[in-house]
Amino acid sequence: MAKSNKPALFTCLSPALLHLYDVKSSIVVIIDVLRATSTISTALANGAKSIVPVDSVAECIRIGRQIDAVTAGERDGKIAEGLQHGNSPFEYPQEFIAKKTLVLTTTNGTRLLHMALEKGAKEIVTGAFANLSAVCAHVSKKNLPVILACAAWKDKANFEDTLFAGAVIDAVGDRFSIHCDASQMAHIMYSLAKQDLFEFMKSKNASHYHRLTGFGLEKDIKHCLTIDTAPVLPIYNDGKLIKGTI
Amino acid sequence: MAKSNKPALFTCLSPALLHLYDVKSSIVVIIDVLRATSTISTALANGAKSIVPVDSVAECIRIGRQIDAVTAGERDGKIAEGLQHGNSPFEYPQEFIAKKTLVLTTTNGTRLLHMALEKGAKEIVTGAFANLSAVCAHVSKKNLPVILACAAWKDKANFEDTLFAGAVIDAVGDRFSIHCDASQMAHIMYSLAKQDLFEFMKSKNASHYHRLTGFGLEKDIKHCLTIDTAPVLPIYNDGKLIKGTI
Repeated sequence: MAKSNKPALFTCLSPALLHLYDVKSSIVVIIDVLRATSTISTALANGAKSIVPVDSVAECIRIGRQIDAVTAGERDGKIAEGLQHGNSPFEYPQEFIAKKTLVLTTTNGTRLLHMALEKGAKEIVTGAFANLSAVCAHVSKKNLPVILACAAWKDKANFEDTLFAGAVIDAVGDRFSIHCDASQMAHIMYSLAKQDLFEFMKSKNASHYHRLTGFGLEKDIKHCLTIDTAPVLPIYNDGKLIKGTI
Repeated sequence: MAKSNKPALFTCLSPALLHLYDVKSSIVVIIDVLRATSTISTALANGAKSIVPVDSVAECIRIGRQIDAVTAGERDGKIAEGLQHGNSPFEYPQEFIAKKTLVLTTTNGTRLLHMALEKGAKEIVTGAFANLSAVCAHVSKKNLPVILACAAWKDKANFEDTLFAGAVIDAVGDRFSIHCDASQMAHIMYSLAKQDLFEFMKSKNASHYHRLTGFGLEKDIKHCLTIDTAPVLPIYNDGKLIKGTI
């Protein structure tokens, strides 16, 4: 295997595996396609001032009061008790969210973001199909090691986050040195799925597809699997996610 | 999703995820294709009396002396210092291993076996392509929940163990209730790879393929990716793996 000067890229399939990677040197791309990171991109693209990711419902309520912000979040796919809004990108159109701050807590995505923060990530951005091209442009330009960190579902690997990792690798993988079977597997999966991500999730009996369609959220899934609907780069800075320069 | 009376089947992609599964109720299939569980099957098929899996080199040496057994094991793909033999199935032909006890320690496989043991697994067997049909016959017959537990490489998911999980699912998945994206992904990967597992590993730049070919072990890899070369069922009982009844 020839040594390469390209930066390394890894895919971390579950938050429970994050400790295996060199978080401190890397851009960590937090991936929670259904639906936290899709919603984060959408809210910022629709003019939200910033998004404050918090890891508990209590914290969400407390900060929401303190800074007069919109509080939102889910636990197990439903709006968490005590919060105003849920985790659907459709809840955040421009006429509602523009110039507002959103305080958000979710089962998997915001928890993973805090884990990356605690481990001293060099930079944290969020990725979803909604902002695929923005993420790809950013990580290509920076020339730093990258960890594609899947939020998964309660630490179990899932299709949609793995597929997004594969989509990034499909687009810009050749700019990185990839010696990581999880990345290769993600890329293979995406190559099979990319013609129709929704049909793929449906036909492969994806667990999250079933969980969310059970709540009547097929429309959300379709939207979250559509590429570049919210072409912004959410970047973490001083406690909040703001729109970064691409 | 209709409820099913079939037992559940899960694929655990890394030892670091084992705590997510209901180990106590399940048959845990320990999978370390390159090369621990391939070698375990081979040694038992070639007449070894039993295999004592231990989790440290020191323990391997101590027990080897105590019971006058063959000591073997690797760390990072090479024979560990102080042990007599390595982790290659070719080291255990019938003329050498028949009627002997093998005390074995490996980087990933024997460690995972001890984790499953500590978590109180209902039953522990080992699986590799060498004994694929035996594993499939056994788990089909038992009608119990199954965890296909990949030993991975230092907790990072790998191709070969994931592919073996996919092979089991390909053969007997319809007898189980599978709501597990990792299992679906493993099955998809195996469906792509099954025509020529070796070529697949090579062409997909599998990390372990590169690690072992770097040590001149291409022959080992080919052998370990061949189906049913050692058609036995290693089953854990009272401190050792013995040939189970299929």
